[in-house]
Amino acid sequence: VSAALIVGGGLAGSVLAIVLARRGQTVEVFERLPDARKVYGGKHAPLNITLCPRGLRVLAAIGASDRVSALSVPVYGRQIHNADGSVSYQAYGSKGEALYSIARIDLNGALLDLAEREAGVRLRFEQKCVQVDLERSTAAFQDARTDALGEVRAERIFGADGAYSTVRQHLQRTHQFNYSQSYLTKGYTTLKISPPGAGSPALKPDVLHVWPRGNCLWTAFPNRDKSFTCPLLLPYHGDDSYESLSTEGEVASLFSRLFPEALALIPDLARQFFARPPDSLLTIRCDPWSYGDKTLLLGDSAHAILPSYGQGANAAFEDCAALDQCLDECGAEWGAAFKEFEQRRRPSMDAMADLCVEHFRELSELIGDAAFRDRRAMERRIHELYPDLYEPLYSMVTFGSKSYAEAVRIERRQRAALDRLVSWNIDVERPEARAMLENFAREAR
Amino acid sequence: VSAALIVGGGLAGSVLAIVLARRGQTVEVFERLPDARKVYGGKHAPLNITLCPRGLRVLAAIGASDRVSALSVPVYGRQIHNADGSVSYQAYGSKGEALYSIARIDLNGALLDLAEREAGVRLRFEQKCVQVDLERSTAAFQDARTDALGEVRAERIFGADGAYSTVRQHLQRTHQFNYSQSYLTKGYTTLKISPPGAGSPALKPDVLHVWPRGNCLWTAFPNRDKSFTCPLLLPYHGDDSYESLSTEGEVASLFSRLFPEALALIPDLARQFFARPPDSLLTIRCDPWSYGDKTLLLGDSAHAILPSYGQGANAAFEDCAALDQCLDECGAEWGAAFKEFEQRRRPSMDAMADLCVEHFRELSELIGDAAFRDRRAMERRIHELYPDLYEPLYSMVTFGSKSYAEAVRIERRQRAALDRLVSWNIDVERPEARAMLENFAREAR
Repeated sequence: VSAALIVGGGLAGSVLAIVLARRGQTVEVFERLPDARKVYGGKHAPLNITLCPRGLRVLAAIGASDRVSALSVPVYGRQIHNADGSVSYQAYGSKGEALYSIARIDLNGALLDLAEREAGVRLRFEQKCVQVDLERSTAAFQDARTDALGEVRAERIFGADGAYSTVRQHLQRTHQFNYSQSYLTKGYTTLKISPPGAGSPALKPDVLHVWPRGNCLWTAFPNRDKSFTCPLLLPYHGDDSYESLSTEGEVASLFSRLFPEALALIPDLARQFFARPPDSLLTIRCDPWSYGDKTLLLGDSAHAILPSYGQGANAAFEDCAALDQCLDECGAEWGAAFKEFEQRRRPSMDAMADLCVEHFRELSELIGDAAFRDRRAMERRIHELYPDLYEPLYSMVTFGSKSYAEAVRIERRQRAALDRLVSWNIDVERPEARAMLENFAREAR
Repeated sequence: VSAALIVGGGLAGSVLAIVLARRGQTVEVFERLPDARKVYGGKHAPLNITLCPRGLRVLAAIGASDRVSALSVPVYGRQIHNADGSVSYQAYGSKGEALYSIARIDLNGALLDLAEREAGVRLRFEQKCVQVDLERSTAAFQDARTDALGEVRAERIFGADGAYSTVRQHLQRTHQFNYSQSYLTKGYTTLKISPPGAGSPALKPDVLHVWPRGNCLWTAFPNRDKSFTCPLLLPYHGDDSYESLSTEGEVASLFSRLFPEALALIPDLARQFFARPPDSLLTIRCDPWSYGDKTLLLGDSAHAILPSYGQGANAAFEDCAALDQCLDECGAEWGAAFKEFEQRRRPSMDAMADLCVEHFRELSELIGDAAFRDRRAMERRIHELYPDLYEPLYSMVTFGSKSYAEAVRIERRQRAALDRLVSWNIDVERPEARAMLENFAREAR
């Protein structure tokens, strides 16, 4: 009997395995998919992660910085490709801050390597969790190669099995379990731009490219090998939707109308488009995240959010670090640590779930909008002038270390101050502007 | 192969069976519990339903009025038993309107009788739905007496299986299904007051009795035989909660402190309290309610609401009538009728779910509050003076025929008008009050 059974060997599961092993636990990790290090692609959805300081701090603490740094590329801002063919650029931070773009499968592979090196960690792949008995603290797995069923017992079960978590499904049947799953009415398909050959067209490599077109959104994340991973977001129904695209010709025609650059960058675009069914995007909330001292959900299984802020993986890593800290503080009283973990993390993840839904709309609909851009530009200017009094929300979330919940509280106050500046028509460069920002900051305390 | 398989022979299921049979469908109803007409009590939770005109209209249309009328008793208002021992009375309507209180099991039995009389309806009991195949339109049932499993195929499956619906659980696994379940942190236990003997204390028989005590709420619904069905609502945790009550002495002590009248009315109170585990209260929302033209959820399985307005059963009956109407309008194009049904009913049930959560707080916390009562009294006075311009929300929901969604829209406007009257300190008896109400009504159009 292992001390810890981790269902899911993805980003949350592999970091959790390292954290628990270093606390002296024996850990078994059961992952549904084949080993990410051996089967490149295949069942693994192509996806890029943008690591920000929140996640990087946790990765540094477990000694993953060198590996991750060798696999990722810095991204300094958003290159916005407007519908009229013009291009505008928004730096992520005012001081050259960068996000780090990395293929999910590469990051996962690096973390699995590190987990495997820990004494007491054992990894199993192609093991689909089909049943969890919360009372007995056992889980049943089906081997994808042999179909054989096996039962595993552990002192504790951790559900790190993502948005479609099986562990959570079993928690959902317990007394007074609150739960919601809410889908975006859009799905996405990930296309791939190969590294450019000599003389072929190329995108700028150290930025995130965004083509906002109302209901449709195309993005391109740079990779270390100069290729780009490019999620295309489309509505499921209506005009320019998955429903409306059934032939390669229809796909090519949509791209030539909305994203003409893509045609030169991706020769086999329509083939790629139909290679995989679209993936869905959803928000998951549930409560509680634990079952006594026996089971805990963390990462996407507890709180899947939309990818609008690129925070899903970063939040999962913060979860692992927060649990580690709660265990320190609770003297390894597992039940108490699980409760404390939830109390500490829930307000932030609730706030983030809402923010992501809101920001999603901005990304696809407003980012190309002049009034919206003016407001963002004003925010950046105020931040430059009064960095101690005003920090854009995106920057607090992405480059700050305050909890998401705290960032949202500050943003609420900042938004009120900005509204006041605009409605009173106060020049942001004048001392009255500073006085007003100070007033709002004072009232908030 | 029947035309329609109805999972659940409760209130929604039995009325739906009648409606579909009268459309010429062969109908099979599979119910998990024993026949309500043969086993009184037992596994059936004791519960009273308050029928209002919404539900009564549907029952009249299927010819159930006489039976229901013989089994129910009119209730004209709320008798509020305050903590200081005083009693106040609030009539439900200004024109002597009544709700009809009826034991759920009696109402269910009457409806099953009517369903059974329809040609083409077959009822099966103690059949637990364990599996639904949406594509093949089959469901598997386990017989509670023999444990035997059987599969039933039908052209269409209707999920009338309540808040914990098995049919919905299978829908939940389909593409893009939005779902939420949200529990109240309180549960309830139903106590029973027997018909009074000669000289024993008795409650007023034609009112709903309410003992609001902050977190705890006790209510008593009259029955035809002069007994009362009395749900007691308690928090699960904290002071005066289920958690804090483990002995009969503790229960007696809580009652003597909060509900002293109960001790004389229910001699075996503590025994009754522990006879059944508490039941939970929850709100369920999901989207969509149907799967092609094959499966439809209705009643609590589609939209369970808190019992604060006593609308759950009434709404389920309205569902059946609305579906009937949609089938008329769509020429028995089932898929189209299911979509139309959802479009017509969802806004109302969403609005109602929110209202119930809000009103629940009022019932348990505010109803004993003086400011709250003053506001309610002012509302009633305005309604008396200007019945064409102002109707209290409770009255629109309970005695009106407008959809819940429309009632909520009107209430929003009325609330703004009332706030204005209060803040401008306008005497409601003066012509300025009418002018203001007229203004708000005009703007709303």
